[in-house]
Amino acid sequence: MKKCFKIAICQMQVEDNKERNLNKAVAMINKAADEGAELIVLPEMFNCPYDSDKFVEYAENKENSQSLDAVSNAALKNNVFIVAGSIPELCDDHLYNSSFIFDGNGRIIGIHRKVHLFDINIENGIKFRESDTLTAGNNVTVIGTDLIKVGVAICYDIRFPELSRSMVLDGAEMIVVPGAFNMTTGPAHWEVTMRARAIDNQCYLVAASPARNDDLSYVAYGHSMIVDPWGRILANAGHSEEIIYADINESLISQVRRDLPLLKNRRTDIYD
Amino acid sequence: MKKCFKIAICQMQVEDNKERNLNKAVAMINKAADEGAELIVLPEMFNCPYDSDKFVEYAENKENSQSLDAVSNAALKNNVFIVAGSIPELCDDHLYNSSFIFDGNGRIIGIHRKVHLFDINIENGIKFRESDTLTAGNNVTVIGTDLIKVGVAICYDIRFPELSRSMVLDGAEMIVVPGAFNMTTGPAHWEVTMRARAIDNQCYLVAASPARNDDLSYVAYGHSMIVDPWGRILANAGHSEEIIYADINESLISQVRRDLPLLKNRRTDIYD
Repeated sequence: MKKCFKIAICQMQVEDNKERNLNKAVAMINKAADEGAELIVLPEMFNCPYDSDKFVEYAENKENSQSLDAVSNAALKNNVFIVAGSIPELCDDHLYNSSFIFDGNGRIIGIHRKVHLFDINIENGIKFRESDTLTAGNNVTVIGTDLIKVGVAICYDIRFPELSRSMVLDGAEMIVVPGAFNMTTGPAHWEVTMRARAIDNQCYLVAASPARNDDLSYVAYGHSMIVDPWGRILANAGHSEEIIYADINESLISQVRRDLPLLKNRRTDIYD
Repeated sequence: MKKCFKIAICQMQVEDNKERNLNKAVAMINKAADEGAELIVLPEMFNCPYDSDKFVEYAENKENSQSLDAVSNAALKNNVFIVAGSIPELCDDHLYNSSFIFDGNGRIIGIHRKVHLFDINIENGIKFRESDTLTAGNNVTVIGTDLIKVGVAICYDIRFPELSRSMVLDGAEMIVVPGAFNMTTGPAHWEVTMRARAIDNQCYLVAASPARNDDLSYVAYGHSMIVDPWGRILANAGHSEEIIYADINESLISQVRRDLPLLKNRRTDIYD
């Protein structure tokens, strides 16, 4: 078990062109690996515009997936772990918003299917209904890697403190959140939510957004960030395409949990 | 049921002198009521320095309490609801950190005894052990008032998302937090924690700190704040003694919960 390593988030600008999205993802993974990152994270829907019609058009079956093959090859070539943001996954006639996790041999070592579907309807503001096209997953996802134990939540999943807590009680030391908050919810809630999950659970929090693309129907907020177990922002993207990096130190988790024993001080005897 | 009203937080500077603390609390309540506040909140340990030895010295039994009598009279005189921060309460040989809630007739309509005791031990930093002197309460506290349904959490209680969620599931529309974060945890965690609880639970969050007093052994951070159900900070104190106010609009709670149905979208079937 390594105790220190470098992580990278590829805040790529997703376009309405799968080929170009995949080429860009691979190029950014290669670059991040060259810089020494051992765990590399892509954003939610890295291969596809965030748009219900496009989910159907871009969907792939994991047994025959151009997108997953591209990431698998990049993981193998660079010998890195990859949390491959998410793609629209077709499985048994259901469409999921799914994150695949790869090891350094290019093998899939975990899948998280978004468990909370995002339905928002703000008067005179953003409207989106994932539940029109997507099916929800049913699992809390925590994956052991050689580097650190990773819980995966996709976007809206992170709004539910119960899920983050469940992952951490299952051993997660880092919560990875491929997510595409929008221009309404992003400025209002992105940073505070990510920092609060890290603080409450005394774990690393890695939130990977696509870069902003005003040409798409759903405009992502950007501002990917890496937060440490004390809630400090270690790295913070703007809204444009870029790779951000941070050094992860596993021992900080146990230090913070020893100093302020939140996870031990829970009163499970009195909560609803 | 009133739908709109004004709330006030009295960020009073607590001293090592009970008489002066009580006189100040009453004067600030009177002032806030004159300004139109109908619900008035005092800070944690408003009658007593935050110090384990002082808890013992300042403790009162609720049947014979100079501090509670003073607040009761102020509530009656001004016809206002008061969440009386907290005091060290002696009951059956146990010492509690207890918040008493009063109606406009000066009657006690609820008590919250801090359920999570604060034990912190940061290397080269703050050390404090409430559990050396205090006993923990055992109840989730939600109190109906004519104005709004109020959940009460004392300081360290707010660090546990399970408690806030429990209060909101029990009907709380506002979480009131008499709290004294310190100069280590305050800058790091106060604002983000308060805002996150409001955002996650789509409720008002009212956090009342004592003003900073560098003469005491435990120095409170200050920065009392009132946050709306979308996470916006409506009012925000500095570190000195002052009263802050905000207008509470109950209909905003249902609007936010309708726009973004977090409480309905929980996946209680999959959490630990």
